Amino acid sequence: MTDSAPDPEQLAQACSEAMHENDYATQMLGIRILESTPGRALLSMVVRTDMLNGHAVCHGGLLFALADSAFAHACNNTNKATLASGCSIDFLASAREGDLLTAEARERSRSGRTGIYDVEIQRQDGTLIAVFRGRSYQIRGSVLPDTSPPTEEKTA
Amino acid sequence: MTDSAPDPEQLAQACSEAMHENDYATQMLGIRILESTPGRALLSMVVRTDMLNGHAVCHGGLLFALADSAFAHACNNTNKATLASGCSIDFLASAREGDLLTAEARERSRSGRTGIYDVEIQRQDGTLIAVFRGRSYQIRGSVLPDTSPPTEEKTA
Amino acid sequence: MTDSAPDPEQLAQACSEAMHENDYATQMLGIRILESTPGRALLSMVVRTDMLNGHAVCHGGLLFALADSAFAHACNNTNKATLASGCSIDFLASAREGDLLTAEARERSRSGRTGIYDVEIQRQDGTLIAVFRGRSYQIRGSVLPDTSPPTEEKTA
Amino acid sequence: MTDSAPDPEQLAQACSEAMHENDYATQMLGIRILESTPGRALLSMVVRTDMLNGHAVCHGGLLFALADSAFAHACNNTNKATLASGCSIDFLASAREGDLLTAEARERSRSGRTGIYDVEIQRQDGTLIAVFRGRSYQIRGSVLPDTSPPTEEKTA
Repeated sequence: MTDSAPDPEQLAQACSEAMHENDYATQMLGIRILESTPGRALLSMVVRTDMLNGHAVCHGGLLFALADSAFAHACNNTNKATLASGCSIDFLASAREGDLLTAEARERSRSGRTGIYDVEIQRQDGTLIAVFRGRSYQIRGSVLPDTSPPTEEKTA
Repeated sequence: MTDSAPDPEQLAQACSEAMHENDYATQMLGIRILESTPGRALLSMVVRTDMLNGHAVCHGGLLFALADSAFAHACNNTNKATLASGCSIDFLASAREGDLLTAEARERSRSGRTGIYDVEIQRQDGTLIAVFRGRSYQIRGSVLPDTSPPTEEKTA
Repeated sequence: MTDSAPDPEQLAQACSEAMHENDYATQMLGIRILESTPGRALLSMVVRTDMLNGHAVCHGGLLFALADSAFAHACNNTNKATLASGCSIDFLASAREGDLLTAEARERSRSGRTGIYDVEIQRQDGTLIAVFRGRSYQIRGSVLPDTSPPTEEKTA
Repeated sequence: MTDSAPDPEQLAQACSEAMHENDYATQMLGIRILESTPGRALLSMVVRTDMLNGHAVCHGGLLFALADSAFAHACNNTNKATLASGCSIDFLASAREGDLLTAEARERSRSGRTGIYDVEIQRQDGTLIAVFRGRSYQIRGSVLPDTSPPTEEKTA
């Protein structure tokens, strides 16, 4: 085939599928990947009873985990293996049991090996729950095992 | 009773016990409260298989959750209800399955309603895994339901 | 009088004028207030020789000062006295002598006494130089000495 | 001389002297380098009238500039050219005209090309004014033009 360079949109989707398949932590948290386009990702999580802290609201660490996961998809879905070097989060409102949260990550800057990504977490009623900013660092390697068009084989 | 003002060390311990008992999220993550003294806390977490991300290292969100929990104990254990307003974390090294992580939180500053707390996460071999800084905001109310001496409730 | 409630746009302008008149630091740095609308501000600064560090680029502290000033105008221009409690900045590209920098601050969130503001610094060619996030804390008092219509004091 | 590898303490001092000589911004702010040892630096600044903002306290940007300068010395004084990639600051108390501020920077972590440095700003009475955390990124090159022993150039 001559069209071996995958479409960026398809590549993003394939990267996110491969990432999620091996990510036991996001699976444990019930996080779902709703959308993944180059430099952007939209994830969701429902607040379960076992995610509540002593104030009966979602533990901040799990809000962070949702945002951090969205960040990871946004910065890896061009198939360049990329890690988080640091992140900050500001908590604006609480999430309660049963709330459906969505986290949307967007690339703000990427040059050389480093990038900046912003994530917003919203509640189902549109309330802004938290804002997150992640700093990424690109390492060697790719997300997908090779650069051929993604097949439906399972990734390790 | 004349001994109504509890010893600060005992109060810190009682606050942490009460907090942990109702914190389903830290229980779900297997986090243990090793020490809680006024403005300081030491917690531990073992990295389980379901805490790994696609790189087979502990998900950054769960490292954050450990640090954030240590921060919560350190800023609430003087029995003044206090929330996290924002946090930042820098990731320095990875944690793998089976690693025993400890997070030590210390108060750096507290005046008026706000405070700053630093947390370090270390691996069992002493390697520094992450540094975390939390900003706290004191709200109305106390951690313990009243100021009477705590009962001998079990600690997790 | 029926016109006692000032127009928000005029109020923002008046607040920024009053703030800038007494702000010796921003004057010393040659910072100019280009626009000030409720929750938003646009400022500029030209990089002078005495703003360069040893790498012959603008000192990061002075980039921060520009962003922080834009943040201050955006969070005070509804005439509620507000302070910065903390800020973070990420440096993306350098600014050199003679560069004309603009910093645009926008409110991301404001509820209760606290707010989050994002600032971008750009170079004259549109290059993104830095991103900044500020956390605000509203105190007692107003920016303008009273709520009467502002006088025609000069803007810097 | 055969002992061409300089003593780390002397090297740190020489790096700071070389950096400061070309740093017009820190000179403009009257910043002085009090100590520079490997991975650590202590700087001072006196709050001048032209450093005050509209609240008659030191502009946060100039507090940041002091902390950022201390960070720069601490992360460059092993003679490896290093830049700030990002920083955060939390403001705890105000500084007024005439206050003598000191900023002490210390390395918290350094591995590969990146590092974490903490800076505290104190007032002459010991009050903690601000805490700052900087992330460094090592680039090619050295601080000193070559590795020959530093000459007796004057320190600011």
